[in-house]
Amino acid sequence: MATNQAVTTSERGAMTEQITETIRAVVDKLDIPPTLHEPLFAGNERAYVLECIDTGWVSSVGSYVDRFEKMLAEFTGAAQAVAVVNGTAALQMALTICGVKPQDEVLVPSLTFVATANAVRYCGAVPHFVDVENRTLGLDACKLNAYLKDVACIEDGVTKNRRTGATIRAAVPMHTFGHPVDLDALAEVAGQWHLDVVEDAAESLGSYYKGRHTGTFGRMGALSFNGNKIVTTGGGGALLFKNPEDGKFAKHLTTTARVPHRWEYFHDMLGYNFRMPNLNAALGCAQLEQVNSFVERKRELAEEYLAAFANVPGVKIYREPVFARSNYWLNALILDEEYADQRDGVLAATNDGGVMTRPIWTPMHKLPMYAECPRMDMSVTESLEKRVINIPSSVSRRTK
Amino acid sequence: MATNQAVTTSERGAMTEQITETIRAVVDKLDIPPTLHEPLFAGNERAYVLECIDTGWVSSVGSYVDRFEKMLAEFTGAAQAVAVVNGTAALQMALTICGVKPQDEVLVPSLTFVATANAVRYCGAVPHFVDVENRTLGLDACKLNAYLKDVACIEDGVTKNRRTGATIRAAVPMHTFGHPVDLDALAEVAGQWHLDVVEDAAESLGSYYKGRHTGTFGRMGALSFNGNKIVTTGGGGALLFKNPEDGKFAKHLTTTARVPHRWEYFHDMLGYNFRMPNLNAALGCAQLEQVNSFVERKRELAEEYLAAFANVPGVKIYREPVFARSNYWLNALILDEEYADQRDGVLAATNDGGVMTRPIWTPMHKLPMYAECPRMDMSVTESLEKRVINIPSSVSRRTK
Repeated sequence: MATNQAVTTSERGAMTEQITETIRAVVDKLDIPPTLHEPLFAGNERAYVLECIDTGWVSSVGSYVDRFEKMLAEFTGAAQAVAVVNGTAALQMALTICGVKPQDEVLVPSLTFVATANAVRYCGAVPHFVDVENRTLGLDACKLNAYLKDVACIEDGVTKNRRTGATIRAAVPMHTFGHPVDLDALAEVAGQWHLDVVEDAAESLGSYYKGRHTGTFGRMGALSFNGNKIVTTGGGGALLFKNPEDGKFAKHLTTTARVPHRWEYFHDMLGYNFRMPNLNAALGCAQLEQVNSFVERKRELAEEYLAAFANVPGVKIYREPVFARSNYWLNALILDEEYADQRDGVLAATNDGGVMTRPIWTPMHKLPMYAECPRMDMSVTESLEKRVINIPSSVSRRTK
Repeated sequence: MATNQAVTTSERGAMTEQITETIRAVVDKLDIPPTLHEPLFAGNERAYVLECIDTGWVSSVGSYVDRFEKMLAEFTGAAQAVAVVNGTAALQMALTICGVKPQDEVLVPSLTFVATANAVRYCGAVPHFVDVENRTLGLDACKLNAYLKDVACIEDGVTKNRRTGATIRAAVPMHTFGHPVDLDALAEVAGQWHLDVVEDAAESLGSYYKGRHTGTFGRMGALSFNGNKIVTTGGGGALLFKNPEDGKFAKHLTTTARVPHRWEYFHDMLGYNFRMPNLNAALGCAQLEQVNSFVERKRELAEEYLAAFANVPGVKIYREPVFARSNYWLNALILDEEYADQRDGVLAATNDGGVMTRPIWTPMHKLPMYAECPRMDMSVTESLEKRVINIPSSVSRRTK
């Protein structure tokens, strides 16, 4: 198939078929479910959850919450972890702790799940969209730096958007499909522009950048334990902290800001009801005990896809950058530019054939509620939008 | 003990002792835990939760969520129910659906748990505090009407606060400790002033006003299933709807406003990640199967307290108004005005003696973040604040 010549209809049909067949061959070989991700409960899930019911501790106080937080801190190397109701709440709390105020701007990749931008909006702030790079599928620090030189200035140690006059307070890189962004490059840009970094590590539990766990580079990191994540609590999330003072503040904020007292109900600021219930934390403890084997299975599957697609023309399986050891949460197939028009054909053929696939998210700047938000050139985002297809990536294996 | 004469120190000591002894006698007689409320898992909790784990359906999609919503609608008589992550989220969604906008005002009792006011603030709106009445411990519709005549006017069918110029959009009565406010009186006032009513029924599952379940009188009702509520899901809440259109909107809002599509991720407005996980809904289904017996036990306990305190001077157990059949979620002991200074002594004596009690909440207008919000005269609220003590009210019975 010559890439520089016009592609014929029959070539396209053949390509769709070859991609579909190759996905199916891997799914069958490893005997994974033909869905994007299904959780695996092969450890102490039943025992821990039953213990909650038998002891009556199912709600927002209980030993599994503490244990889950300790396990998370230990696994990631964070100074502290605080469990919350979901990843969106974790992001909202992180931004609140960074002091994000109404009308402030927060730098967010446009190519992300909508929660990243929504969390900014919940603070009354404005998402300011940044392009991504092909190498990581995440925030492009270099392009961001050049852009900020163009549109921003520093006044009294605070970065201002010269067009809107708003303070640009923080940046929220998101580790797409578990693949770490270039965190050293980002740290340098953030340092220059006095930006707090909150890592949206919702998809990257078990992913490392230069040997260190994602979510521990920024001031805070946000994890998600939704049912489609590598480790699930049913619904849940967590914050990772460098600074124990931030962690203490997060506990206060997420427990309605109630001031500890034997009996008085006094709240000293606007707080939130965001603590993870003990029942969900129990599930999380059992899951986290197995996370290393889950990551191994995900990486094993990625190797299979990489090998299977090595000789399929017009398409590549995304491979982690050299600085990363990724959890390969969701494997991504990326069509070459000239085959971008094949995306919907592949999506239809696979889904029609019982193998679940999906495109990457609609970029945030194309959603109606964010269409007017400030943003830079979005050429890489818009190119990837047309070419990325996620393919089955479960840790679990079907039993025949 | 003569109520019109000065009360001596020794009389006070005797009073504290008598109250403490009387509480303890009831706790011992019914063999309830000496805490305020502990959940009881005596039904299908273990089976349903294990089913979630065994089938892999623990997250925000699953059959228990649908089942829980159907059971709630059936039990309460609401047209529809939507399960969410907690009662606070339910209130926030209800106000959003009512069209509460930043700078709007929402009428809220000052004597409530902080979530009622916080939900208003999450919408960017301003809680406008209303006094309560002794008869219900909840919003005083008559006093509200007189107050609105004084401070508000109607312009083009919308009520405006004449002092602030803001739109007064809605009223959120809260059914304190499960006891219904006078909903007919409130409906009349709300009708006159074009206010949407959202019932904060967090504490009143199983409570009826004139034979109809609380939470079904207003445009919407919000329930809570926190661990301390009559029915628990670990953490959770729900919305009750009169109008199926509101219910449909709530489902959209609480699932990140994603537009249904086989594979596209497109969100048409600012949405929320507020759906209840299936694991928690499973617990809720098992609990809801037992709710009638839970209410019976609560009412039985209230009868015991009422009888035991009938001849204790200076104090009364709160009794449901004639129009109500209450779940008596938390029993409340109310000191006579002249014994208000006994509150802290009783709280200390009981808690020191291993019987958990607590005062009513600090009124919202006394919290720092709400101190500047508009409000009416708070004489009843401030009087009750000094005199109410909640006493052990569990459904569960200790096994000796």
